[in-house]
Amino acid sequence: MPLSAHFPVWDKLTASQQDRISSSAFRKTFTKGTIVHNGSLDCAGLMLIRSGQLRAYILSPEGREISIYRLFDLDVCLFSASCIMNNIQFEVFIQAEKDTEVWIIPPWQYKKLMEESAPVANYTGDLMASRFSEVMWLIEQIMWKRFDQRLASFLLEECAIEGTTQLKLTHELIANHMGSAREVVTRMLRYFQSEGMVKLSRGGVEVLNRKRLEELREE
Amino acid sequence: MPLSAHFPVWDKLTASQQDRISSSAFRKTFTKGTIVHNGSLDCAGLMLIRSGQLRAYILSPEGREISIYRLFDLDVCLFSASCIMNNIQFEVFIQAEKDTEVWIIPPWQYKKLMEESAPVANYTGDLMASRFSEVMWLIEQIMWKRFDQRLASFLLEECAIEGTTQLKLTHELIANHMGSAREVVTRMLRYFQSEGMVKLSRGGVEVLNRKRLEELREE
Repeated sequence: MPLSAHFPVWDKLTASQQDRISSSAFRKTFTKGTIVHNGSLDCAGLMLIRSGQLRAYILSPEGREISIYRLFDLDVCLFSASCIMNNIQFEVFIQAEKDTEVWIIPPWQYKKLMEESAPVANYTGDLMASRFSEVMWLIEQIMWKRFDQRLASFLLEECAIEGTTQLKLTHELIANHMGSAREVVTRMLRYFQSEGMVKLSRGGVEVLNRKRLEELREE
Repeated sequence: MPLSAHFPVWDKLTASQQDRISSSAFRKTFTKGTIVHNGSLDCAGLMLIRSGQLRAYILSPEGREISIYRLFDLDVCLFSASCIMNNIQFEVFIQAEKDTEVWIIPPWQYKKLMEESAPVANYTGDLMASRFSEVMWLIEQIMWKRFDQRLASFLLEECAIEGTTQLKLTHELIANHMGSAREVVTRMLRYFQSEGMVKLSRGGVEVLNRKRLEELREE
């Protein structure tokens, strides 16, 4: 699976641009848990995911986290090249949630391409619009949804991603995704359990009644 | 003040592109309070503000509002052309907060320019990155700041925008900006008043102690 087969605007590049990307791009593997991008301290370049899963999140001054979006196979990670984008005035952190293999296009190679090529510049704008849309979805959830609805939505999304109702998630980890406190998550999960929607165990949550969670999410 | 003097990448356009924009762009005036852009129902085009003030906000299903950013003289309004941007999956509303005069570049003229010109495409990406940064700032405020700190920050921003400490703002209007309920705003303003930070009157808030509000904001 060469990069050329999956880089979205490959056929709109000139032969010399294709050569430059082919010869500068490289492959890298991140083991599960690795911090792939540490805010403005890092700028590895544009990453195209061969396989694995990345999570983008923000950090409060006190170290609280909230996940803002996730990336899967063949998604492109833009913020790992945030140094080449003008006007980005926020810090995003990216972590490998599974062992992840990526192609990396070095930032200044990509920047040069954006400056030369309208298709590449427009593609980059489209990528940013996708991430922007995910953050707007999140802000709407935070502002207009109750915590129980957000938690139901999170558990259902995890089931879809993992392809199982047996989720290996600590309450701490859920709190980090949702930008909440562990105690708040624990209290709500216990309520979900008392209502027969989930079953709690050490380091895990089993979804028992997906339909009820879906109804709660849509309320 | 011709459009050419203020359109940011004007000198990177070809003569024929400049002609197309000059002949298709037009001026329009919105009176204070007008809804300039009504989500995906409208797509007037890219707007460059000659004078005035616009507010971008989102709406909950129940009609609650939260302001996401504001635009001032010579700012460019991107989301009034949201139909030409791929991957934008959210609804933004834009309202004139003051009588506002704009130039409008029709959406399909601008789209054609983006497709032809890497500088225009990159400039559009830069604009989106600026708006994205404002929304990320907002999400951080909502997630990590207390309501009293957000209200202090809002009042200080209003003083800066209006150039006065005598703010003509109803509690309802403040609630709409902050995505909060009027009762919550009223309660907190009364607390601010009891602490000598503001003085409340019918339809207005006077900031008495800017320094205390600044300290509160930074806590």
